[in-house]
Order: sequence, then structure tokens, then C-alpha cells
Amino acid sequence: MKSDIDTLLKDSSLDALMVLGPAQHNPAMYYLTGGGHLTSAVLIKKVGQVPLLFHTSMERDEAANTGLPIKNMDDYRFTDLLKESGGDVLQASVKRYRMMLSDAGMRGGRMAVYGKIDAGVSYAVLSALQDSLPDLTIVGELGDSTLLRAMATKDSEEVDRIRRMGEITTEVVGRTAEFLTSQKVDQELLIKSDGDPLTIRDVKNRINMWLAELGAENPEGTIFAMGRDAGVPHSSGNPDDILRLGRTIIFDIFPCEPGGGYHFDFTRTWSLGYATDEAVALYEGVLDVYQQIMSEIRVDTLCRPYQERVCELFEAKGHQTQLSHPGTQQGYVHGLGHGLGLHVHEPPWMGITARESDRLVPGVVVTVEPGLYYPERGLGVRLENTVWVRPDGEIELLADFPLDLVLEMRT
Amino acid sequence: MKSDIDTLLKDSSLDALMVLGPAQHNPAMYYLTGGGHLTSAVLIKKVGQVPLLFHTSMERDEAANTGLPIKNMDDYRFTDLLKESGGDVLQASVKRYRMMLSDAGMRGGRMAVYGKIDAGVSYAVLSALQDSLPDLTIVGELGDSTLLRAMATKDSEEVDRIRRMGEITTEVVGRTAEFLTSQKVDQELLIKSDGDPLTIRDVKNRINMWLAELGAENPEGTIFAMGRDAGVPHSSGNPDDILRLGRTIIFDIFPCEPGGGYHFDFTRTWSLGYATDEAVALYEGVLDVYQQIMSEIRVDTLCRPYQERVCELFEAKGHQTQLSHPGTQQGYVHGLGHGLGLHVHEPPWMGITARESDRLVPGVVVTVEPGLYYPERGLGVRLENTVWVRPDGEIELLADFPLDLVLEMRT
Repeated sequence: MKSDIDTLLKDSSLDALMVLGPAQHNPAMYYLTGGGHLTSAVLIKKVGQVPLLFHTSMERDEAANTGLPIKNMDDYRFTDLLKESGGDVLQASVKRYRMMLSDAGMRGGRMAVYGKIDAGVSYAVLSALQDSLPDLTIVGELGDSTLLRAMATKDSEEVDRIRRMGEITTEVVGRTAEFLTSQKVDQELLIKSDGDPLTIRDVKNRINMWLAELGAENPEGTIFAMGRDAGVPHSSGNPDDILRLGRTIIFDIFPCEPGGGYHFDFTRTWSLGYATDEAVALYEGVLDVYQQIMSEIRVDTLCRPYQERVCELFEAKGHQTQLSHPGTQQGYVHGLGHGLGLHVHEPPWMGITARESDRLVPGVVVTVEPGLYYPERGLGVRLENTVWVRPDGEIELLADFPLDLVLEMRT
Repeated sequence: MKSDIDTLLKDSSLDALMVLGPAQHNPAMYYLTGGGHLTSAVLIKKVGQVPLLFHTSMERDEAANTGLPIKNMDDYRFTDLLKESGGDVLQASVKRYRMMLSDAGMRGGRMAVYGKIDAGVSYAVLSALQDSLPDLTIVGELGDSTLLRAMATKDSEEVDRIRRMGEITTEVVGRTAEFLTSQKVDQELLIKSDGDPLTIRDVKNRINMWLAELGAENPEGTIFAMGRDAGVPHSSGNPDDILRLGRTIIFDIFPCEPGGGYHFDFTRTWSLGYATDEAVALYEGVLDVYQQIMSEIRVDTLCRPYQERVCELFEAKGHQTQLSHPGTQQGYVHGLGHGLGLHVHEPPWMGITARESDRLVPGVVVTVEPGLYYPERGLGVRLENTVWVRPDGEIELLADFPLDLVLEMRT
């Protein structure tokens, strides 16, 4: 939780953190500024102090709106620094960072750096900055960083925002089901009112419009994959595919608040009109495992045993999993779930590589998403819901929607 | 242009480039893969060779869709590497990168790195990778990198995509004008059909829906700023502000293809019903400078003199500019324009810090956007169009729309 940052920084022997980049679509900066139209900013937070936000002149109002103490980085006169450095952009940048660090009161110690910016720029600038400041240790944290650990547990305002995205998500999923089942059918193909066949492109266009109407965006797209594509977990679906009865469709939707805010993550597997016996069997297997694991999830437990448990359940049903067949591309091929917040995927991790720190502590919001994939048989099934581990230890489903496989056509 | 990459790499004494991160909302990766649903990828391109794309198992179909040679990075068995490294994620990551570089045939030389990923991760991994490979020099390019220089000139397919975004943009701007002028007015405030006042939030919701309907997204939002907010170039506008007659509204819209593809960038300044004399005077000044500079722009010229020329034109009209008043926050406070493509802002730069390499060579797509800002007087005016410097040397406006200040109310 945001209120844990100072404690977590101390636990990691860090004296400060620095975040680089825009405030939108950049979870670290969004988290500490609240988003807003800052296209280029620097934030420095020392342990025990509020963050200091550096902004450009043109974005002074947006910076002020964050409520944080702010400083205009144009005051450092970059063009003058560039002249002093004989036109060397790297040296001028390092000088400006040194001035910002000095103004933030950072003269030494260990400082973690975060923020989505160009990899080459980070490498060049942070290396040169490190070389010029022997008393400061710049720390790049891999895997679950200190900041990600803070972000993993949500306060009630964050949960409300995720829940609101869940409401929008299930509203859009409901409208999509309604839209699909009201189409005409000709020789098992769905046909629009204008007589043209209905494609995945058409469906995705509707989904995008409904999301925009309801106040969400889906910068990373939506998975709406049919048949063989449904058998490959991250296949987003072929836009030209025509909707057809009796094929498994994986509909995985993960929208967020505009500007890259809090996400939701949700998957259903549908078969229009009817389902083949093969699809029903797979679906019932996934549903059974989903229900079983949901009944077993408890607060304050490790994540990894749930993945092992799900692998065992699927193996008992005759499917390959990562447990017995590492790297398998058929059967149960991915992790059980992941944390969810400003990232679609964040700690805690519920896969086979989950560690001691991946725990269902109060405050985490995680997905639960078992699935089975048989691309060569043109089949895939995944069911995904998002739950919150509440402070009282209860596991709360953040958005509800029927788990049904078959959508009956109404025409 | 993409076809220039090998030449540009050689000019920069580079033997290869490496791109990290997702394929969406990550211009470097989008440029070389064509976008698509790749959430985590590595691309390595040696001079004279096609890029090799490393992907995860779950995204093998999306990777194959790029048409590039691909390699599954799960084949490197990260969990085994982690065990070998005693659980050290950094060392395991470095080992995997070394295997990828080896498989891409990179055993030495100079390699530039690009791609939007976490700054701390880039710093840690690339530093450790550099330490472990003395024959390889990892290059982080600041400012206008080799890849950005390639991206600055567009081929005809790229221009067609930008032009299509321009059509969508002007369609949305037209609908917005229509929507605003059809509202009721009560005591100079715009009133919706349900009797509630019309806010900037309402207008932005409409804009988002129209963009989604027409097949575009605006991940970085839209500037719709009124009165004093219009006087600060990057103020995105207060959602709660009620639309009011006779106030300058800066409407700056910069949507892109879904997934972070090609952008457009467009600004008009409107005053609903009527305009104050003060607003008209500012507007006429900006319009005059816009028309003057558009008539002077020529192929194969430096960008910087246009900014100086615009400053001189505004100073002759009695406004402060960066030329005489560096850092001024009133008058003409920003650059004349910028390149446009997979980034909203990219080279060539048309501001006061433009360099020798910022030139209007054939193929560049740039904005032309003079403006005047007086936040203390509650006023701002900016007019922006996007032009393409064609291979035949002509300057082509990529989307046309009336430049009018006053929108007459139709009610």
C-alpha cells in the first residue's frame, strides 16, 4: 500500500526512489502523482518525505494539480547546461539530474529508479550519473521491486476503482453477448443486418465503442480468439475471422481507466448456439478446477501451492501441465493468475515461478484463471475472475458474470 | 525511412540494434514488428540482416504474424538459468541475453539499445550485460537516436496511415463543433437537453466515443482547455468547467491507431457564439504568423530558422518570445512544431533547440503550430496543422479544416 512505501524502502536499505517519464501509461509515475497530463517528469522521494515533482513550464498546472511539492525543471536552463558541456547532451542531462537530486536533498545513499522510458537513455544517463556521484548508489531492481511490492496491496480507494472497472467490463461483456446472440445465422455463420458476415473486427469495434462510452480504454487491445487461435493463450484473434456457431471463443478483456489507470481482467469462453462434446468436456474440466481452487483460496497463504494444486487437478484429468511437462504448449500452459492494478500483470504472481514474497496477504487483488489449450484440435478454454483479499480475510469476487459456455442464439 | 536503417547504423558506427519491451505503445518495437499483441519481446537486428524476434511461448502466433524470423525465448529455460545462478534474477537475465545475442550472431561490436521499459531494469541489466561482454559495446543514444532518424522520414504507406488518422481527427473535430453549436444557451452557459450544464467532461466523453467508433484511440488524452487553462500550452482542461460563450478554447487532439500506431496532431482555437476583441486580436496575430510561415516553408531547409522567424514575427507584434525572453510563460512560449509518427513528438524538431540534423528533408511529417498565451488574462490561442514534405518537394497539408475562431451557435 502507498502508506507502506517508507517501511518497504527501509526494508530494502533504500534511502530514496526516483521515477522518470510521463504520468500516464507509466504505472510508477501514475501511482505517485495520480496520473494527469504530464508528458515528461522526474519525481524524487526520500524516505520519510513527500515526493518532489519536477515538471516542464508548459505542464506547470498539471504538475500543481497533483498536490505534490513541485519544481520547474526549466529553471535549470538546459540550453545553458548544453553550452557549458560543449553541446554534449549526456553531460548536460547528468548536470540537470545532479541539480534535481541536490534540490531534493539527495547527496548520497541508495536510490532505486523506476519509470517506463527508453532503455538506451536509461542506461546511458544512469550510468553516467552513477559515475559522477560516487556517494550515491543507483539501484535498478529486477523482478518484484520495492515499489511493486507497495503497489501489490491496494487501499480501499484503489479497490473501488478496480471494482468500477469490473462493472464496466461486465457491462461490455453482457452487451457483447447480447449483440452476438441477436445476429442472424446462415449455414452456421453469423450474418449482420446488412447481409455481410460478422467478423471479429466488427465485434472488437463494438467493444471499443462501449468501453469508450462507459469511460474506459483498452490500450493493450482485447483478446477475442476463435478456434485454433483460442488454443494459444495470447493470440488476440484474427480480425477477418467470421463468427461461427459451435467454435470455442476466448474473450479476455483487460481495460483500464483512461490515461493508464487501474485495470480489470476478465475472461469467458463462449461457444455460440451449441458446443461440441470435445469443447464441453474441456470446459467442464476448467470449470471444475476453477470452482475447486476458488473454494480453497485463503488469506495469508503462499501463491505457488495453488498453481501446483491446479496442475495436479488437471493432470488427474489427463492433461499435460508445466509440472510434469515444462514448456508444454498443450494442456494447462500458464500460471493460475497474477496481481492486478496499474499494471494488467503485477505481483503477486500465481505461477510456477512464484516465490516466498508471492502471498495472498490482505489487500492484494489477483486474477484466478485456469485454462486448457489444444491448438491442433482448434480448441481453447479459459475462465478468469478477479478477486480481492479483503482486510478481514474474506476473498471477494470483484465482478460477477455467468460462467456459461454456450450462448443460445435468440434468432 | 525503414529502408535507410542499415545506412544510418553504419553512419553511427553501429553494428546492430536491440529493442526491448512490448510491441504496442512502444514505438521502436512497433516500428520494427508492425505492432501486434506481443507483451514482452526482444528484437536484435544486425547491419545488413533482417531482425530476429524473440518471443514467449504464449505469443508465438503473434510473433509469427510479424513475418520476421522468430525464436522462442522460453527455449532458454529461465527457471534452469535461475537455478544455475543461485536464484539471482539479474545473473539469470544476463545469461539469457547472452544466449539471445549469440543466437543472433552478435559476438562483438557496437549495439544501440531502444524500447520503453522500466528505467531501473534497463540500467541494471544492460550494465551487468556490458560488464560480462567486453567485446560488445552497448550504446544508449540520447536525443535523436539512429532509429529516430530513420523513423523521421516516412514512406508512402506510413503517410497513408497518418493521413487516415487525419481524416478521423477532422471528422471528430467537425462532430465536436456540430455538437457544441447545437446546445442550448442560458446566461452564456451551454445547457444539455436534460437541463444540466455542459461540461468539458461531457465533451471529452463524446470525443472518446467518436474516436473509438472511427477506429482510433487517444492514450495520451485530449487537450480541451478553456479560459486561463487555454493560456498554459499543456493544460488538458478542467473536466468540471462548464462550456461558456466568448471564452477561448484550445482543442488539441492527437489520436493514434489502436495499439500505439501512427498519430495525428491537430489544434484549433474556438470561441463559442462570439469572441472578445482581445481574443480576436490574439487569434489574428497567430493566424497571420501561421499563414506567413506556411507560405515560406521549403523542402531541404533547416528547421531552426523557422522558429527564429516566427519569434521575430510575434515580437514585431509586441509579444514576448523565447528569443528575447528565454523561459517566458507569456507570449509565444514553445517551439513551432515537431515531427509526428509513432510518437506524437519526434524529430525533426522545429524549436529553438533544433540542430543541424533537424531539416525538412523529403519524407518528414511535421506539425506547424504557432500560438500565443496569456494565462493571467484568461486567454490562449494555438493553430496547428500537420504537413508532409513530399518526395517531389511539395509541402502537403495532411488534413484540412477551417481555421475559424468563432463557432456560431445554431440555437
